Amino acid sequence: MLIQLNPTGVLDLLSQLEVDLLEQSSASERYKLFRNCALAVLNVGSHTDSSNEIYDKYKDFDIRLVSRERGIKIELENPPVTAFVDGEIITGIHEHIFSVIRDILFICQKYEKNLKEQKAITHMVFDMLRNADALRVNIEPNMVVCWGGHSINELEYKYTKQVGYELGLRGLNICTGCGPGAMKGPMKGATIGHAKQRIKDNRYLGLTEPSIIAAEPPNPIVNELVILPDIEKRLEAFIRTAHAIIIFPGGAGTAEELLYLLGILLHPDNTKQCLPVILTGPKESETYFKELCKFIQMTLGKEALDKFEVIIDNPELVGQKLKSAMTDVRNYRKSEGDAYYFNWTLKIDNDFQQPFAPTHENMASLDLHLDQPKQQLAANLRRAFSGIVAGNVKDEGIKAIKQNGPYILSGEPALMKDMDKLLQAFVEQGRMKLPGSKYVPCYKIKA
Amino acid sequence: MLIQLNPTGVLDLLSQLEVDLLEQSSASERYKLFRNCALAVLNVGSHTDSSNEIYDKYKDFDIRLVSRERGIKIELENPPVTAFVDGEIITGIHEHIFSVIRDILFICQKYEKNLKEQKAITHMVFDMLRNADALRVNIEPNMVVCWGGHSINELEYKYTKQVGYELGLRGLNICTGCGPGAMKGPMKGATIGHAKQRIKDNRYLGLTEPSIIAAEPPNPIVNELVILPDIEKRLEAFIRTAHAIIIFPGGAGTAEELLYLLGILLHPDNTKQCLPVILTGPKESETYFKELCKFIQMTLGKEALDKFEVIIDNPELVGQKLKSAMTDVRNYRKSEGDAYYFNWTLKIDNDFQQPFAPTHENMASLDLHLDQPKQQLAANLRRAFSGIVAGNVKDEGIKAIKQNGPYILSGEPALMKDMDKLLQAFVEQGRMKLPGSKYVPCYKIKA
Amino acid sequence: MLIQLNPTGVLDLLSQLEVDLLEQSSASERYKLFRNCALAVLNVGSHTDSSNEIYDKYKDFDIRLVSRERGIKIELENPPVTAFVDGEIITGIHEHIFSVIRDILFICQKYEKNLKEQKAITHMVFDMLRNADALRVNIEPNMVVCWGGHSINELEYKYTKQVGYELGLRGLNICTGCGPGAMKGPMKGATIGHAKQRIKDNRYLGLTEPSIIAAEPPNPIVNELVILPDIEKRLEAFIRTAHAIIIFPGGAGTAEELLYLLGILLHPDNTKQCLPVILTGPKESETYFKELCKFIQMTLGKEALDKFEVIIDNPELVGQKLKSAMTDVRNYRKSEGDAYYFNWTLKIDNDFQQPFAPTHENMASLDLHLDQPKQQLAANLRRAFSGIVAGNVKDEGIKAIKQNGPYILSGEPALMKDMDKLLQAFVEQGRMKLPGSKYVPCYKIKA
Amino acid sequence: MLIQLNPTGVLDLLSQLEVDLLEQSSASERYKLFRNCALAVLNVGSHTDSSNEIYDKYKDFDIRLVSRERGIKIELENPPVTAFVDGEIITGIHEHIFSVIRDILFICQKYEKNLKEQKAITHMVFDMLRNADALRVNIEPNMVVCWGGHSINELEYKYTKQVGYELGLRGLNICTGCGPGAMKGPMKGATIGHAKQRIKDNRYLGLTEPSIIAAEPPNPIVNELVILPDIEKRLEAFIRTAHAIIIFPGGAGTAEELLYLLGILLHPDNTKQCLPVILTGPKESETYFKELCKFIQMTLGKEALDKFEVIIDNPELVGQKLKSAMTDVRNYRKSEGDAYYFNWTLKIDNDFQQPFAPTHENMASLDLHLDQPKQQLAANLRRAFSGIVAGNVKDEGIKAIKQNGPYILSGEPALMKDMDKLLQAFVEQGRMKLPGSKYVPCYKIKA
Repeated sequence: MLIQLNPTGVLDLLSQLEVDLLEQSSASERYKLFRNCALAVLNVGSHTDSSNEIYDKYKDFDIRLVSRERGIKIELENPPVTAFVDGEIITGIHEHIFSVIRDILFICQKYEKNLKEQKAITHMVFDMLRNADALRVNIEPNMVVCWGGHSINELEYKYTKQVGYELGLRGLNICTGCGPGAMKGPMKGATIGHAKQRIKDNRYLGLTEPSIIAAEPPNPIVNELVILPDIEKRLEAFIRTAHAIIIFPGGAGTAEELLYLLGILLHPDNTKQCLPVILTGPKESETYFKELCKFIQMTLGKEALDKFEVIIDNPELVGQKLKSAMTDVRNYRKSEGDAYYFNWTLKIDNDFQQPFAPTHENMASLDLHLDQPKQQLAANLRRAFSGIVAGNVKDEGIKAIKQNGPYILSGEPALMKDMDKLLQAFVEQGRMKLPGSKYVPCYKIKA
Repeated sequence: MLIQLNPTGVLDLLSQLEVDLLEQSSASERYKLFRNCALAVLNVGSHTDSSNEIYDKYKDFDIRLVSRERGIKIELENPPVTAFVDGEIITGIHEHIFSVIRDILFICQKYEKNLKEQKAITHMVFDMLRNADALRVNIEPNMVVCWGGHSINELEYKYTKQVGYELGLRGLNICTGCGPGAMKGPMKGATIGHAKQRIKDNRYLGLTEPSIIAAEPPNPIVNELVILPDIEKRLEAFIRTAHAIIIFPGGAGTAEELLYLLGILLHPDNTKQCLPVILTGPKESETYFKELCKFIQMTLGKEALDKFEVIIDNPELVGQKLKSAMTDVRNYRKSEGDAYYFNWTLKIDNDFQQPFAPTHENMASLDLHLDQPKQQLAANLRRAFSGIVAGNVKDEGIKAIKQNGPYILSGEPALMKDMDKLLQAFVEQGRMKLPGSKYVPCYKIKA
Repeated sequence: MLIQLNPTGVLDLLSQLEVDLLEQSSASERYKLFRNCALAVLNVGSHTDSSNEIYDKYKDFDIRLVSRERGIKIELENPPVTAFVDGEIITGIHEHIFSVIRDILFICQKYEKNLKEQKAITHMVFDMLRNADALRVNIEPNMVVCWGGHSINELEYKYTKQVGYELGLRGLNICTGCGPGAMKGPMKGATIGHAKQRIKDNRYLGLTEPSIIAAEPPNPIVNELVILPDIEKRLEAFIRTAHAIIIFPGGAGTAEELLYLLGILLHPDNTKQCLPVILTGPKESETYFKELCKFIQMTLGKEALDKFEVIIDNPELVGQKLKSAMTDVRNYRKSEGDAYYFNWTLKIDNDFQQPFAPTHENMASLDLHLDQPKQQLAANLRRAFSGIVAGNVKDEGIKAIKQNGPYILSGEPALMKDMDKLLQAFVEQGRMKLPGSKYVPCYKIKA
Repeated sequence: MLIQLNPTGVLDLLSQLEVDLLEQSSASERYKLFRNCALAVLNVGSHTDSSNEIYDKYKDFDIRLVSRERGIKIELENPPVTAFVDGEIITGIHEHIFSVIRDILFICQKYEKNLKEQKAITHMVFDMLRNADALRVNIEPNMVVCWGGHSINELEYKYTKQVGYELGLRGLNICTGCGPGAMKGPMKGATIGHAKQRIKDNRYLGLTEPSIIAAEPPNPIVNELVILPDIEKRLEAFIRTAHAIIIFPGGAGTAEELLYLLGILLHPDNTKQCLPVILTGPKESETYFKELCKFIQMTLGKEALDKFEVIIDNPELVGQKLKSAMTDVRNYRKSEGDAYYFNWTLKIDNDFQQPFAPTHENMASLDLHLDQPKQQLAANLRRAFSGIVAGNVKDEGIKAIKQNGPYILSGEPALMKDMDKLLQAFVEQGRMKLPGSKYVPCYKIKA
């Protein structure tokens, strides 16, 4: 089976110079990354955490750029048939394929591997969003970022749909990491809310990264897909795009996101910031949030708890609070002369922008003691959870664990004990991996 | 609670003369009908077959036209709160309210009560659809009418969603009677299919009638709602708008629809007609269709069976067949110089156009013998089932049954036996009424 | 040469009943009217006051309705070639042809010949505008009606273009009687102003009537054309659609318009009305306006002069005044609950609504004395000028003059003397007829 | 008078890094260029060849970038009042101002001063057009480039309008150098043609360069403005964007354009190219074209004459020929896999891409002999005329002439004699400069 696809979006209009560079890029060491991401996008609907499983299944899949005088085409060999209807690719998947090419092969060429300067990193994040047409001028604040686990139970999943429905009814849009679970539920719910309100320009923004796209392939409902190069830029894209943030129950990744967010909001420059954050879930998840809050209070102090609100079992209230908060967000942005589509005034320290490579060495040497500034502690804890996510579902992490055994985390005993407890709870609640496999922890806590 | 609403659609632009007439109309004997339909539309989401239940619950609900120099407004007193989000009416429901006013109070004024002439009746059906902006010029055939029960089991409901999804993926639109069950499932499924294909001008056309709207309130997904004055005009609207028809499992109403359709397709003038019809359901519903086909064959003969196809448990195949049939439909219409948006060439006999009033007398005197022309038999059988639907869920019918006991149906013994069996099967399969109430038949078969 | 045209606008979507009626209508005594109007529209660009000249030139022209299952087509035989580019009709002219069919053959069927009741007449005017899609909801007031002569000199014509340019620069739209001269200049000027301001939804509304369309064929720039049945309904359409009115120099027709307008504005019910009126022209036309004002003062009194403003040689000031007046118009309409798109609150007396047939008898018996109420005098003077227009350029009038000689007007000597002087000035300034022919007066003043 | 303007187009969405760079750029040596171009754009409607005249008149004009968190604004001090209506800038001029910033300050930063490689130069031209949103995907070929003099007589100007009208009637768009004369007439004519055909997405593309924008300021009808850095890139933009080219009478600049075009079309790689070229003018300009053709034949040979067609006094024929040629252009592009929006297959030699600086030295050393390859001769002749244009109307050229006297051109006597004759004709026909000043030649022919 051989399929040709025409480009969409910015790739529709390329110069011959750009086509040459794209071809070189696709033939280079980036080819594998590009092929795997394309495969992930085509293979949507499969349920597995293991990218290797997918790669094995589609060994004879190939993707090639074909250049013409007027630009490029894509040729797919033996793509997963689920992406097609009567031989024609589903439009949403078609667009996602070209988002992959755009972000993995095209725009990346403009940037050096290791940007150091803060303004340059933020510019890159902005540029990638702009290039993906994901920044809209003259639109009132309405983008709600939803975080939460890719592996949540049925009750929790239904709850995320209900929250999404209430957001959709109020004309709010959804941004998630675009995998399954808490990343899909709010979008599905919002779809119905938007339909009932006759909203046609509804946005389902998915922000992902190459190393996780296979485990969390974007649902075709996602109508704007951006693939940031690493988790740090992805997190920056989330919080600069967000007008509000909802955190549903989740595992290590969700903890990473919350710590990242709090670390930034605790920065003295951000005290005036207006960025509503709500943690919410069904009645049955109440203890989950209690434990999480306890951990936050112990590590980052009471002031961190003031940065968010917990609402249990009340999707309508979540919708109402966020809808009415949009006015505050708009007023804040206006008073600062800031854009609605990108939160420029939010201060993000270098600690949170620089990529953290989850090597065994880096993980082992994390400074996990309570007697350091709160932001710094948040940054280090964020890194610890980031490493665990990598060890759980990202290729590089899984490989490292296979070779060297679990990561060793050590630090202040009291802190390590609480962390262990939290992680243990994630394991027991099945939040680390999709059901169907027994979870073997990728870390060891050394008190 | 007092709410004011501005008009939508054609009611946005009225002359003072028209406003006067509307006010008179709303104050006249039509007021009750208008109020009840408006209430039904506002009360969407409730699950009951009994309009009286709803009317009782909202005794203090009132709706009034308020006239201004520039036109009308609507004032709602004590409307059901479920129609509102944070005090604002859901846009879809807002539109439905004004569809009710448009069809019940406004356009009806143009027409005498009892149109006799065939061309005039068809003109009225056309005019009501046009006035509702439900006829689109220059659009390729893509409207699939879905019929089926309002009370179907979970398996069947899921199946209707899957079929809707496959239709949506293929860019097909959905038209139903806009109640629950098989009338809602295909629309919900199509919504997801359309979203994945990035289709923005998706149509969910609901055709209903005043006497059934309370029992089958239009879901707000319905984005075009037309309320035809009686079941005969509603059926004509269905088949002249349809480019294809799917029949899911259902009860007496579905049988009425199938008999109506076959009676018309068997007319000699319609032999060339291109109107694909598929009966479909999950594996578990196979016997249902077998029994139905047996009844059809016995009554209308083998040629009637040639007018449709039965597909069991294969939503994708249903989607594929109908998608590819659209080309034939287009070619037929083109060759006849007919419109795509309205099937003018379809011959509908007077027998099928004239309203049938389900009085006990009319029901008792139906000619139910096999030795009459097939079309005529189809027309009479259609009337019999139509009466049973009225006795089950329509106000006038329920009232008549309460007063005079069940309808008595009599005719050729063999036919009556088969009919009894079929109806008995509907009862046993719970297709007559929504679950939660014991069904007491509104008819008696006198062999 | 035989051309087929598909319908546009509302005629795109007709029932078979409507097609039958249209065919009957086009074959009836209306055929000639319809054919002549269609010819006038096709023959745009010709410069003549004499419809007969045109009719003679295109004796072999024919237009026929062709009915299909799905509606109508039009067949043109030997149409003027100027309406075509490389064998294809110019889109603007194509639309005008179907405006003719819509207004002359289609909508007229709904109305009796001689409507008497005031509300019914206003409803008809409204209905024709609505049916032509010339009423726009939710648009701020911006429609400037421009009146003035079809035969004006080059200086005056340039001036009307400059005024139109200033209006266009300010986002105002133009409505005229859609012939040459002062009816075309403002539209041409506005086109450039709109282009510079990147306005894409610019409106050039032309209101005409069957008896004058040949002498004043609509320029294809007119993008909304409505053909009202007589001058009285046309005048009502003008002033109910207008948010402001400009009067350029003109002849008898312009005087008719001004008298009609003043007669209505002087009605006690209209004292609160907000309808800015400006008389304007180049320096060279100053005396024209002085004479006109003198005549108004003498006949209708000083209060009539307060209803308008005269601005000489200052297009920019005209633009500025009208632009800023739009806020007052909006506030007035809002305070009255009136529509922006149609001035319902304007009181128009029966005297101004009832058609005046310019027979010799009617003209002779006009009551032209100063000692009658001002509005009544305005109505009678309006009729006198209306008759003169008919005698100058309308078929029926020209024919009547040919048969019976000039109309005889008589009345109070002082008034008749002034009227004679004014008319004489029109003649001398070439305002009665297009240049190229010697003007023979169609009236005689009997003092 | 101090005015603030919000950005339009791509400048609407800038990162803080980009804002910083823009600010630096506007404060640097580019400031003067930027200010002068902005002034030229604001000062549209003035008629002068002398930029200095304008600069002197508006000495106290200033333009500043103001940065905000969310991007930039522009502040104008003492701008020409003609750009404003009631204190608000005309939208078209507003857009042009930001085109200036985009092209002069923003995109230029991406490119080194002296690009050498052919692919890189073409990429830059493409990138500037794309960045200006002047490349449209999926549009059939319809762009007609019109070249001709900025100083032409009234008859010729009217003729260019008529040709533009015929193009507009046929749905063709216009691209010119966007100054007065033959650059404005076709756009004005097309506006009317487009309006009659109800074309709303009409394009009036203006391609200019910083050194000529003051002498040839873009009319606000130009709805896409791109300022290429030099004449060579501007010419490349013209011919890669063109689907056809019309050449009206003109002076040295028009000769430069024709020689550039012919030099390229004569390249062996371009023999298959489909690019229709028509030279046209009114009857009175016939000898002009005869002389031009004679010069072409003498210098570039008979084969050069085959590359174009001369049509005298027939605007309709010009329109018909180009309209029907669009099918050939489309077929050619399709067969080559080339884009419709940019002619990639057209080979442009280094000789035509490299900027020619019109210093006295460079002019004096031009190789003007007949015994060289035709393309090379065309390139050299092109440079000679280019220098004369600079000496006539470009700042740098005028300054050089003031300092060093006229350019000295020398070469083969026969050639020099013919060139002298041609230039002399241009002078006599008033094609070198706008009327109102006596033309003093900026060159001397040394035989």
